[in-house]
Amino acid sequence: MVYLTRREYFSASHRLFNPKFSYDENLQIYGKCAYPNGHGHNYELEVTVVGEPEPDTGMIMDLKKLSEIVCQEIVNKVDHKHLNVDVDFLKDIIPTAENLATAFWRILSPKMRSGKLYSLRVYETPDNYAEYRG
Amino acid sequence: MVYLTRREYFSASHRLFNPKFSYDENLQIYGKCAYPNGHGHNYELEVTVVGEPEPDTGMIMDLKKLSEIVCQEIVNKVDHKHLNVDVDFLKDIIPTAENLATAFWRILSPKMRSGKLYSLRVYETPDNYAEYRG
Amino acid sequence: MVYLTRREYFSASHRLFNPKFSYDENLQIYGKCAYPNGHGHNYELEVTVVGEPEPDTGMIMDLKKLSEIVCQEIVNKVDHKHLNVDVDFLKDIIPTAENLATAFWRILSPKMRSGKLYSLRVYETPDNYAEYRG
Amino acid sequence: MVYLTRREYFSASHRLFNPKFSYDENLQIYGKCAYPNGHGHNYELEVTVVGEPEPDTGMIMDLKKLSEIVCQEIVNKVDHKHLNVDVDFLKDIIPTAENLATAFWRILSPKMRSGKLYSLRVYETPDNYAEYRG
Amino acid sequence: MVYLTRREYFSASHRLFNPKFSYDENLQIYGKCAYPNGHGHNYELEVTVVGEPEPDTGMIMDLKKLSEIVCQEIVNKVDHKHLNVDVDFLKDIIPTAENLATAFWRILSPKMRSGKLYSLRVYETPDNYAEYRG
Amino acid sequence: MVYLTRREYFSASHRLFNPKFSYDENLQIYGKCAYPNGHGHNYELEVTVVGEPEPDTGMIMDLKKLSEIVCQEIVNKVDHKHLNVDVDFLKDIIPTAENLATAFWRILSPKMRSGKLYSLRVYETPDNYAEYRG
Repeated sequence: MVYLTRREYFSASHRLFNPKFSYDENLQIYGKCAYPNGHGHNYELEVTVVGEPEPDTGMIMDLKKLSEIVCQEIVNKVDHKHLNVDVDFLKDIIPTAENLATAFWRILSPKMRSGKLYSLRVYETPDNYAEYRG
Repeated sequence: MVYLTRREYFSASHRLFNPKFSYDENLQIYGKCAYPNGHGHNYELEVTVVGEPEPDTGMIMDLKKLSEIVCQEIVNKVDHKHLNVDVDFLKDIIPTAENLATAFWRILSPKMRSGKLYSLRVYETPDNYAEYRG
Repeated sequence: MVYLTRREYFSASHRLFNPKFSYDENLQIYGKCAYPNGHGHNYELEVTVVGEPEPDTGMIMDLKKLSEIVCQEIVNKVDHKHLNVDVDFLKDIIPTAENLATAFWRILSPKMRSGKLYSLRVYETPDNYAEYRG
Repeated sequence: MVYLTRREYFSASHRLFNPKFSYDENLQIYGKCAYPNGHGHNYELEVTVVGEPEPDTGMIMDLKKLSEIVCQEIVNKVDHKHLNVDVDFLKDIIPTAENLATAFWRILSPKMRSGKLYSLRVYETPDNYAEYRG
Repeated sequence: MVYLTRREYFSASHRLFNPKFSYDENLQIYGKCAYPNGHGHNYELEVTVVGEPEPDTGMIMDLKKLSEIVCQEIVNKVDHKHLNVDVDFLKDIIPTAENLATAFWRILSPKMRSGKLYSLRVYETPDNYAEYRG
Repeated sequence: MVYLTRREYFSASHRLFNPKFSYDENLQIYGKCAYPNGHGHNYELEVTVVGEPEPDTGMIMDLKKLSEIVCQEIVNKVDHKHLNVDVDFLKDIIPTAENLATAFWRILSPKMRSGKLYSLRVYETPDNYAEYRG
C-alpha cells in the first residue's frame, strides 16, 4: 500500500463563536478568535489517499483527478469565503480546524473511487493544524 | 550601511470593494476578493531598517525593540481583526497589499529612532506581496 | 478522533559528547557535533494531541492552552540556553534529537488533561528530525 | 521506539508514459506529464528509520551514516539524471512518485542495520508526494 | 512607488551544454548539469512590477491579470517541457538561470501596461536563483 | 547585469556580550542572547554576485565555484562551531547578524574574480536577517 498526498490552498475568514454562550464566555474560550468581525487564514488542505499503484499506470489515483475532486467539492466552495456564513455544508458548525477536518472528510470520503481516503489535514497557519483519519 | 529585517505575522480578514462602484464593477476589478462577506489571510510583514551598526553593540537597532514597536503599532491593531471595519488607521483605505504597505509605513516611519526605515513588505500569501520604500 | 498539532520554536546550543569515551571516539561517533565548544540550532517542536472535539467548542483542546503548557514546561527552559549545561531535566542526557523527544515527552505527557499526547517531533534542522509517540 | 528522519534532495527529469498505450491514451492518463521530451522536479526524499536510541550514544542510527547510505544508494544514482533512461534500478518502471517510493524502498531496506526502515516519502513538488511503509 | 510581486511555478527539464565545446569541456564547465539526458527542476518565477497604486482601486496592477499574462506568455510555454528543445523563444539559448531571467524579461517587459516591470527572479532550486532588472 | 544568488547553511552557537559592560547591562542590551552559556542557530547565508552572463556559458559565475569559495572561506570555518571562540576572523567581533554580514563580506569580496560581490545576507532565523552591500 502506498500513501499519496495532494496539497491544495484556500483563503477564507472565520470566527470562533458559539451562540449558546455569552460574548464574554466566548472570549474566554476562543480568545481573539471570538472577536466580533472575524479574521482569516491562508488555509492548506492535505488530502492523503491510500491504495496499491495500478500496474499499468504506476498510480494509486490520478493526481489531477484528485486535485479536481478536492477543488470542486471543497476549495471552490470555501475559497475567498466567510466560513461561518457562506458555506452550506458548514452551517451550524463552529469552524475550528478540528471541525473543518471532519466536515471536509464527510464530503470527500464518498467521492473517492480508486484510492481510499486515508487522512485529511487542515492547516490554519504553518504552526496550527488538525488531522482526521476517519 | 547594513540592512536589518524583522518578520512579524498576523491573521486578518479583508474585502476589496470600492463603494464608488457597483457590486458588478467591483467583481470585475477585484474578482472573488470582492465577495460580500470577505475572506482572510495569514499576513507576513517584513520591516527593514538601515543604518551603521553601533560599535559597542554591533547592532543597528535592537531587534527586540524593533519587534516591540512593530507589534505595538501594527500587529496588535490588525491581528485577528477585519481590516475594513476594525482598524482606525485603515478607515477609508481599500486594504490591498499595496495600500497596507503604505499605511503601515506612515505609522512606523516616525517611530524609528536608531535605524531608518528602509522598506516594508506585506505578504498576503507566499505568492503575492507588496513592498514600499518610502 | 482528531489529531491537533501545535508547533513552537526555540534556539539553543548543544554538544554531542559522551564522557565515557575519549575525544577521538566521540569525534568518530558524532563527527563535528562533538567539537569542544558546541554548536546550535533553531529547533522546532511539534506537539500533537489526539481526542474527540468537544461538541460545545469544536476543539480537542484549547490551542492557546496547549501553547502555554509547551512554552512554560519546555520552551522557556531551553530557549537561548545551552542544552548540556543549562537545563535541569536534561542533566546527564546526551542531547540528540531522539533523546530530546523522549525527555520532552516525559515532561509534557502528565500535563495534558483534555487531549492525550499523541506524538512529539523535534526538528534540529529542516532536514533532521526525531519523533516519539510514547 | 523513536522515529528518526533524514531529508535528502535531488534534481531529475522524468516522463510518465506507458509504451503499451498510444500517445493519445498516455496523454489522457498522464496529462502534460506525458509530453514527449519529459520535464523535471526538485525531488525531496524523506527516509524515516525506527528503533530504540542506543543508551551510550543517544542515537537510533548515526544520521551521517544514514545520509551516506541514502546518497550512495539512491541520490548519487538519480541526481541530475533522466529517471526513465539513466537509472538501472528504474528500468521498465514508470517513474511516478508511487513507483519511486517503492523502488527506493527495495534498495534501501536491506542496507539498514541499526534502525529499521519505517517509511520513505518522495516529494515531486511541495504539493505532491507519495509515501511507502513496506 | 510600490513594488508588487507575483510568484508562479513550473516544472521543466533542461541541460546545460554548449555545442561549441566538447563533452568533456562541457562537463568541466557545467558539471553534472551537462549530463547527456538532462535533469529538471521545480522552477519558481517571481515577477515584480513597480508603480503608484491607482487611487480608485488601491492596486498598481490587477494581480489576476499579472498572473494571467505571466502564465500565458511564459508558464504555459515552459511548464512540463524540456527547455532546450520544446520552447521557441529559448532556441539557441543555454538555459542557465541567468539566461532564463533575461529571456523571460524580453517577453514580459513589452506586455506590461499598468505597472512597469521592475525585476524578474528565476529560482532553479530554493538555493540557486538569478534576478534581472532590465 | 544579472544578479546570481547562492544560499549556504551552517549551524553554530554564539553569545551576544560586550565585556566593556556588566552582565546586567549586557542583559539589558541583548536580552536572553546574553545568557552566559550561549545559544545557537541554523544560519543561512545568501551570497549574491552581479555581472553580465558570459556569452559562451550563459553564466555570470560558475555556481559550483561560488559554492566552493563560500564553503571554503566561510562555511567550513563556522559550521558546528562557537562563533565567539572558535573562529579566527571573528575574534573581538560581537557576533550579531549585522557584524557577521560585514565580516563575511570582508573575507569573500577579494575572492570573487568573475562576478562582483553584490550583497551578502545572514539569516539567524527565518524571521531575523541582516544584509550588507559593501
